[in-house]
Amino acid sequence: MKLPKDDYLNSLIKEVTERTVTQTHTAQLEGNLLIDIRDSEELGEGSPKDAITLSKGNLETNIFKHVQNLASPIYLICQSGRRSLFAAKSLKDMGYTQVFSVAGGYNEWKNRGLPIDASKSNGKNRMHRYKRHIMLDEVGETGQQKLLDSKVLIVGAGGIGCPTSLYLAAAGIGTIGIIDNDVIDITNLQRQILYSEMDVGRYKVDIAKRKLLNLDSSINVISYKERLDIHNVEKIFSQYDIILDGTDNFNTRYLINDACVKLGIPNIHGSVFQFDGQVSVFYPQYKEGNSPCYRCVFPSPPPVEMAPSCAEAGVFGVLPGLIGLFCAKEALKLILDIGQPLIGKLLVLDTLSSSFDTFEIDQNPECTYCNCNDKEEYPQYQEIVEACSL
Amino acid sequence: MKLPKDDYLNSLIKEVTERTVTQTHTAQLEGNLLIDIRDSEELGEGSPKDAITLSKGNLETNIFKHVQNLASPIYLICQSGRRSLFAAKSLKDMGYTQVFSVAGGYNEWKNRGLPIDASKSNGKNRMHRYKRHIMLDEVGETGQQKLLDSKVLIVGAGGIGCPTSLYLAAAGIGTIGIIDNDVIDITNLQRQILYSEMDVGRYKVDIAKRKLLNLDSSINVISYKERLDIHNVEKIFSQYDIILDGTDNFNTRYLINDACVKLGIPNIHGSVFQFDGQVSVFYPQYKEGNSPCYRCVFPSPPPVEMAPSCAEAGVFGVLPGLIGLFCAKEALKLILDIGQPLIGKLLVLDTLSSSFDTFEIDQNPECTYCNCNDKEEYPQYQEIVEACSL
Repeated sequence: MKLPKDDYLNSLIKEVTERTVTQTHTAQLEGNLLIDIRDSEELGEGSPKDAITLSKGNLETNIFKHVQNLASPIYLICQSGRRSLFAAKSLKDMGYTQVFSVAGGYNEWKNRGLPIDASKSNGKNRMHRYKRHIMLDEVGETGQQKLLDSKVLIVGAGGIGCPTSLYLAAAGIGTIGIIDNDVIDITNLQRQILYSEMDVGRYKVDIAKRKLLNLDSSINVISYKERLDIHNVEKIFSQYDIILDGTDNFNTRYLINDACVKLGIPNIHGSVFQFDGQVSVFYPQYKEGNSPCYRCVFPSPPPVEMAPSCAEAGVFGVLPGLIGLFCAKEALKLILDIGQPLIGKLLVLDTLSSSFDTFEIDQNPECTYCNCNDKEEYPQYQEIVEACSL
Repeated sequence: MKLPKDDYLNSLIKEVTERTVTQTHTAQLEGNLLIDIRDSEELGEGSPKDAITLSKGNLETNIFKHVQNLASPIYLICQSGRRSLFAAKSLKDMGYTQVFSVAGGYNEWKNRGLPIDASKSNGKNRMHRYKRHIMLDEVGETGQQKLLDSKVLIVGAGGIGCPTSLYLAAAGIGTIGIIDNDVIDITNLQRQILYSEMDVGRYKVDIAKRKLLNLDSSINVISYKERLDIHNVEKIFSQYDIILDGTDNFNTRYLINDACVKLGIPNIHGSVFQFDGQVSVFYPQYKEGNSPCYRCVFPSPPPVEMAPSCAEAGVFGVLPGLIGLFCAKEALKLILDIGQPLIGKLLVLDTLSSSFDTFEIDQNPECTYCNCNDKEEYPQYQEIVEACSL
């Protein structure tokens, strides 16, 4: 059956000039404007690179903001090339003289392998997957956008780093960095839940990156297959909003602290020993209250024989999972600026008794790190002699 | 180059009678003894079904415990059929008259698809992956074996069921059951960390089973693609040592409680609402102290409009992760019989303030469920009118 719309569409094709996607891309490169007129819900797969997005519903009312000269060429693209015919007709009726409808639309654009900007998918469709967050008054669309815009670095892709990175990716943290230079060992699988048997022998950051991108292909995962040291710490840390310390050795913890305090970045700290774990947020630059750094509370490392690692002392597998999720929770709260962060507080969890103790921890007025206001005077980083990751 | 060993091996082949794997299997079915003489480290992939394992190193010293009659047929199998020649020769020298070496060994046994017992992999090689547990005095090899021998059912493969099942599999729970009849929705990915974008639209239990077996191929994962109801609850529950309640509706929670109390199975309960969660272990049959059931504490469900589900009220993504791991921790403690279980206690977690409150909860002497000592008198299960999973 032929619908009246079909007749009109046929007449439109005569009236409106069409361009192929290749012609359109060339015109774009010559400086001409391409407008993606699809609704934001349709942008889930992305949009042509450098196109502006202006939905057909708002086209006539907003086109003047973008194009003041009625003789300027305007290319319109929709999903399949039909709606753009109607839109072009409407713009011509408004007085624009060089309006082109892109034949085949975005489907054809993709088929031809023309460049795409996936970040446009941060539209409503992107938001839809975070619906359970957005429904919370404390989060909402604004809060979810903060998560999407934020950058968190996780030091150590082990027992703490695995659950933390997974839940931060699920929550929609836009950029997740992971630094670790270990390979996966069969004994890791008892608690490092990003990895499977088939991954044994491969680099943790490679597998972690793949698993996180499987979960959400539109986030940005940056892997650093190296050990954190005094030479790379500032270069890496300065690209992040929050650092999450999931290491299990004191030397690296001090380096993380010292760089975070110097750069003014919050340091979310998690650590485990056998059945016990602790979490705190060290952030001396926090806006309010008593806010110590790691060195205020632990001025110097214990002797090596007093601080065995997991490899030496064993660990209840579910414990780094719990501590990792407490860390992830603190990161999300800081970014969303909701609730009371664990700043000035040390949470100590005993999984055997299920007891929780929260200790008040104070800034040390003698601490030469967080009381240093002159970067020139800031203590030098200490070389890491020996280190291992959880 | 021909080694002296080769000459000896050639002479052995003449001296020792070989049998094919098929002949051996037939002989086994007729009641003859098959001994797997490989070291325990080699049993990772399993061993022939109904074979006894007795390593070549201990063969001569322990064979008398298994075979007293020197005329009894003995079939010996190793990995490829070479070591079994040496072993057979040795047993013949000891006076056993009917010793056979299985040609091709376990490699050939597998190639022919003959029956295998994977649980034999619970040898040293299997134990090695749990090294971080075994090093803990509270766990050890004995404790790890308890975990391998235990059976846990998880009701609901959602926000709580995902992390719980993953960490229980990692910890080495030998049999994990999961019941859920939902398919994966894109909005689940914000917190249901077993699933990836590519899994959307597929059944949760199918993907969960695959992911858990990827983590540990030697555990047993049983998936139930159905809704828990009054007709299947006893049949399913009676096959497990512990039930873990990860549902988000009151009707199912009461059904889980009622069946657990009747069958005498511990019920580990986790639930979440927006930023708050709670955990408890309901187990009236526990060996000591005050131990209420779910109905003692919550005698009747709140009105539906007072109990919105996650789908209606939203949930902080990391929260069901935390609650799920608290549940997993309680399951592990119960199985290992270590620490203080959350029996008679309700743990309430507020993620915004990071506060934890542990409330003492009492058995209700009027409760018609956990005070019922006569199964004939036990209250009938109530039909679930409407339910949804987390």
